[in-house]
Amino acid sequence: MKTFLIEELNDLDKRYRTNLINCLSGVKSLNLIGTKNNHGQSNLAIFNSVVHIGAHPPLMGFIHRPTSVERHTFENINETSFFTINSVTAAIHKQAHQTGARYEKSESEFDEVSLTEEYFDGFEAPFVQESPLKIGLELADIIPIPLNNTKLIIGRIKMLTLDEKHLRNDGFLSLSDQGIVGGTGLDSYLSTQEIGRYSYAKPDSPLDDIK
Amino acid sequence: MKTFLIEELNDLDKRYRTNLINCLSGVKSLNLIGTKNNHGQSNLAIFNSVVHIGAHPPLMGFIHRPTSVERHTFENINETSFFTINSVTAAIHKQAHQTGARYEKSESEFDEVSLTEEYFDGFEAPFVQESPLKIGLELADIIPIPLNNTKLIIGRIKMLTLDEKHLRNDGFLSLSDQGIVGGTGLDSYLSTQEIGRYSYAKPDSPLDDIK
Repeated sequence: MKTFLIEELNDLDKRYRTNLINCLSGVKSLNLIGTKNNHGQSNLAIFNSVVHIGAHPPLMGFIHRPTSVERHTFENINETSFFTINSVTAAIHKQAHQTGARYEKSESEFDEVSLTEEYFDGFEAPFVQESPLKIGLELADIIPIPLNNTKLIIGRIKMLTLDEKHLRNDGFLSLSDQGIVGGTGLDSYLSTQEIGRYSYAKPDSPLDDIK
Repeated sequence: MKTFLIEELNDLDKRYRTNLINCLSGVKSLNLIGTKNNHGQSNLAIFNSVVHIGAHPPLMGFIHRPTSVERHTFENINETSFFTINSVTAAIHKQAHQTGARYEKSESEFDEVSLTEEYFDGFEAPFVQESPLKIGLELADIIPIPLNNTKLIIGRIKMLTLDEKHLRNDGFLSLSDQGIVGGTGLDSYLSTQEIGRYSYAKPDSPLDDIK
């Protein structure tokens, strides 16, 4: 085992340190966020920081860094208030990674990486047709994180589309069974396999397996 | 494919809806957060919302819900300003799940689930000896999320211990190679396997595999 104190972390080469620190939070969600501006220009960007905020009301959030790649996503959400979160499968993970390139604002990542825009009645932001789990959200809050000028963007779920084959009787939706990937760091993609599901933990009771 | 509008989501049985909404954000990180209060009582709790906030300075955060299970963690962080984030492996995932039980404040989850407290010189919060990736943090900010009375707790990394066998030349730390698990929803544990790592995406350039 190797121990790093903060002083040693600060002395590391910047790119090495960025890679390492980005691996520490654990397995990451990977999602494509779809938006459109008021002129109809669509945008698609990969995010590895989407997080569950709450179920009642249904809220999801993501950390937005002040970088040029993500800026179009933020500008469009600010303009229109709507965005979509689309899961990344093994089948499209390389295309998802490619959306991270710094395309011009006039270029749509959908075209550039060959993913298909899909629209649902009454919801103006673009979904990713190839994604098996698509969520439409309306902006609910933008919370500044003064420590490093990032933001927590929170949306309220308005609609979602999923493959009911993977929906179990208790509302659990298997992601691993449909090839939805996770990530490590900034550039590693992971397939997943379920080890087990367990009952709600109680003191002095053994866990039951949920089949 | 099945589509739910928000009205239909709101009409679902509460437990069903909680399970479903908790699955939507994608593959989750799973971490054990270790704390101690000023009287020396240790606490350990599993969190599925740890997220990378930034690398310069190195910051990590997690969403704190206003529940009694997590309250001891929050109280201790408030009291002492220090906490640890410890990754969950397949070998200890059932013990990690069991820390979610509502133990009394006078009971330490370390004892209750048979995980071992480990301390490093100069850092007062307890680490999980069985975890191969242990991070010591100091509270940096508590950001309220008014929408649902949750909080984003942010810590600044002060030290970390890792297994250098899994550290690659560019600072990337493989989590899948050391059996660190991810999760889906509230109760599902996932093993992971690397599909690939890819170069930083650029417009009009093919992605290179990183070996």
